[in-house]
Amino acid sequence: MSATQIKNAVASGSLSCEAVARDCLERISARDGTLNAFAFVDPDLVLKQAKELDSLGERGALHGVPIGVKDVIITSDMPTGMGSPIFENYLSFEDAACVSQLRTAGALIIGKTVTCEFAGPAPSSTLNPHILSRTPGGSSSGSAAAVADFMVPLALGTQTGGSVVRPSSFCGIVGFKPSFGLINTHGVKPAAASLDTVGVMGRCVEDIELTFRVLTGAEPLAVDSEERPIRIGLCRTYAWTGADACSREAVEDAARRLASAGFHIEELDLPASSNDLPVTREIINDYERARAMAWEWKTHRRQISPRLSRALENGLKIPLDRYLDALKRVALCRVEASRLFDTVDLLLTPSANGEALSGLEDTGDHRFQSIWTQLRTPSIHLPTSSGPTGMPVGIQLVGRYQEDLKLLAIAQRVLSLLGSGPCVAV
Amino acid sequence: MSATQIKNAVASGSLSCEAVARDCLERISARDGTLNAFAFVDPDLVLKQAKELDSLGERGALHGVPIGVKDVIITSDMPTGMGSPIFENYLSFEDAACVSQLRTAGALIIGKTVTCEFAGPAPSSTLNPHILSRTPGGSSSGSAAAVADFMVPLALGTQTGGSVVRPSSFCGIVGFKPSFGLINTHGVKPAAASLDTVGVMGRCVEDIELTFRVLTGAEPLAVDSEERPIRIGLCRTYAWTGADACSREAVEDAARRLASAGFHIEELDLPASSNDLPVTREIINDYERARAMAWEWKTHRRQISPRLSRALENGLKIPLDRYLDALKRVALCRVEASRLFDTVDLLLTPSANGEALSGLEDTGDHRFQSIWTQLRTPSIHLPTSSGPTGMPVGIQLVGRYQEDLKLLAIAQRVLSLLGSGPCVAV
Repeated sequence: MSATQIKNAVASGSLSCEAVARDCLERISARDGTLNAFAFVDPDLVLKQAKELDSLGERGALHGVPIGVKDVIITSDMPTGMGSPIFENYLSFEDAACVSQLRTAGALIIGKTVTCEFAGPAPSSTLNPHILSRTPGGSSSGSAAAVADFMVPLALGTQTGGSVVRPSSFCGIVGFKPSFGLINTHGVKPAAASLDTVGVMGRCVEDIELTFRVLTGAEPLAVDSEERPIRIGLCRTYAWTGADACSREAVEDAARRLASAGFHIEELDLPASSNDLPVTREIINDYERARAMAWEWKTHRRQISPRLSRALENGLKIPLDRYLDALKRVALCRVEASRLFDTVDLLLTPSANGEALSGLEDTGDHRFQSIWTQLRTPSIHLPTSSGPTGMPVGIQLVGRYQEDLKLLAIAQRVLSLLGSGPCVAV
Repeated sequence: MSATQIKNAVASGSLSCEAVARDCLERISARDGTLNAFAFVDPDLVLKQAKELDSLGERGALHGVPIGVKDVIITSDMPTGMGSPIFENYLSFEDAACVSQLRTAGALIIGKTVTCEFAGPAPSSTLNPHILSRTPGGSSSGSAAAVADFMVPLALGTQTGGSVVRPSSFCGIVGFKPSFGLINTHGVKPAAASLDTVGVMGRCVEDIELTFRVLTGAEPLAVDSEERPIRIGLCRTYAWTGADACSREAVEDAARRLASAGFHIEELDLPASSNDLPVTREIINDYERARAMAWEWKTHRRQISPRLSRALENGLKIPLDRYLDALKRVALCRVEASRLFDTVDLLLTPSANGEALSGLEDTGDHRFQSIWTQLRTPSIHLPTSSGPTGMPVGIQLVGRYQEDLKLLAIAQRVLSLLGSGPCVAV
């Protein structure tokens, strides 16, 4: 069931929060020994909270909806391990702001989903539910696998490079990275604070829109009364030739089918300043991460993986002026890229390089996701296709900065046209 | 002694970290019973850490320098009370990033300085060291009073509206709010995340520049070989007529004296879009605060002061589109205001409305500070004058966004011309 279906069934009294919780716990119990999507689940705590939700007179906008929370987001009643031995069994005093907002809306936090170490590049132990020998992507590995495997209808992730969109693509779910700054990040362990974005992962756009509205106080978008066709810009980006044929074909196929359905499709190029983005991403990420993790570096250096240590060492060597120069180049690209939306409603672009990679050593690269993270635009992955080995692939839609609701409204129409229905099953 | 003098004396071996620490502790012990600048000081812990610093072979850039830390910034070895009963005796697992960076550079964290409740508008119990019946300003009340009263040479504060510059003005010290985003805020309790800025408070610009370089990895600014005069824009702002005569006169007097010293002074107006800033400040502050404090609001509502509760209630009622509209208006003003710096190096503008107010009920208003917080520009208060009752007043210098080092370099020259020397005593 989708989150929206659960919330409606709970609101009408035809389903109890406890029954929903038992369903999720059963699925987790049956499957998570294999998948390792969860870092922490306490069934007694979950059932206790479900019964409390059942006993409340008031019904929140997410009442009874089970949600998984990436294990870099703090919770006062469940440990937050950050994917690191440094934070083993760490119990925070507070809930993260987003967790508390979800709970205020009646959501049931089912457990903590496995994260790569500090939401970084080192792989996690989670397996891809489609083919167990493949990576689920990272760093929101557990959130993607848990949603794809029907353990929860929704999960929170975070994206600094491509950590929401890439695992969503590899696991065949819907993954939304909002505009930078719209979901409050208090209580989310920072990677690079000028890029870090809380994302929402689910199996349909409707559920994600509902969650986004709870977290931001957004009113439902009024239906556009204009009858003009939706204008989509096909944006291959500088990374296009590095993508597998299946990812390119997913985008071309989507463009063809949307054109047949009456959408206006035109080809658009990123501004030349976007060629700086692979370089600026490393500078900004490493500079900010090295400062955000000053405490771990000073006090627990030996418990940091070699891969992350290299990024921190690199970041500590970057002088302020080089960092500022990178920020300025990205800011320029943001201004230039925003003009793309003067002629189109959305961009259509690849989500990832291809199918999920074999093996767990590499969660994949962020080239197709980190463009939009740096540009701070909202982006969403839609599972619309499959690759040569039957693994999910799909498309990424990108909206204008701070026009998240418009992106979600159109994405819902696109997925119902291209996917297997308004609430796609993997 | 200034931080720079201490660090040099420690480096040369003429002074031990322990002796410096004992000096500070003695002053705190003698004075803080009256002033309430500190929320927490553990002399044994401080002396233990001072001895450890003495025992190290390596000398950091701030080796032995005692620093006070505002009590919304977490420390793993001292409780962080946030100025709220909710966090009474709260001991965090980590140090805030900025605290850990200072410690890595050899700084000695002396204690936690009193903050207004969650760095908000409700007053603290700290008294102004100049006249005890006056407010020290807020919300970095304790940091300002501790530096002004010679308990520490340096302290960290935070500014979301005017919480560094205003108390610095009311207490007659130097207070620096860097460009938004340059000092890492991990471990700083957020007020409004798109405005929150860690600031540095001291008695001379040199000490502040040293601290800023430690926190950002900035290289010392190469001395400008150009011989052209420094160009200062006298910017009265829309709030000018609401300022007391002493604040206006401090600015006019500085302009006259700088012109005599060879600076080029021209008058500049803020763009018309700046007239939105008082309104956008309330929208952005309340919207973001209500979300950042979702946990406190859900679980500890009765322990939040009525004044802060009103801001949170207001923030929860603001829909996303109204918030986004405010963000857009500020972004427009940032672009327009940045053009002011095409013809001048710095702006000269009032720091605060006037002298510190009588009584502790009101920490003063943020009209002259929150302009620059919203514009994200670096700004610094310099104590250059005194008001009708002999309390300190001064001027605020504002630099172009991300040109913090240039601002600090010129501010040092300005203070040596206008103040009582390169390291001004109050």
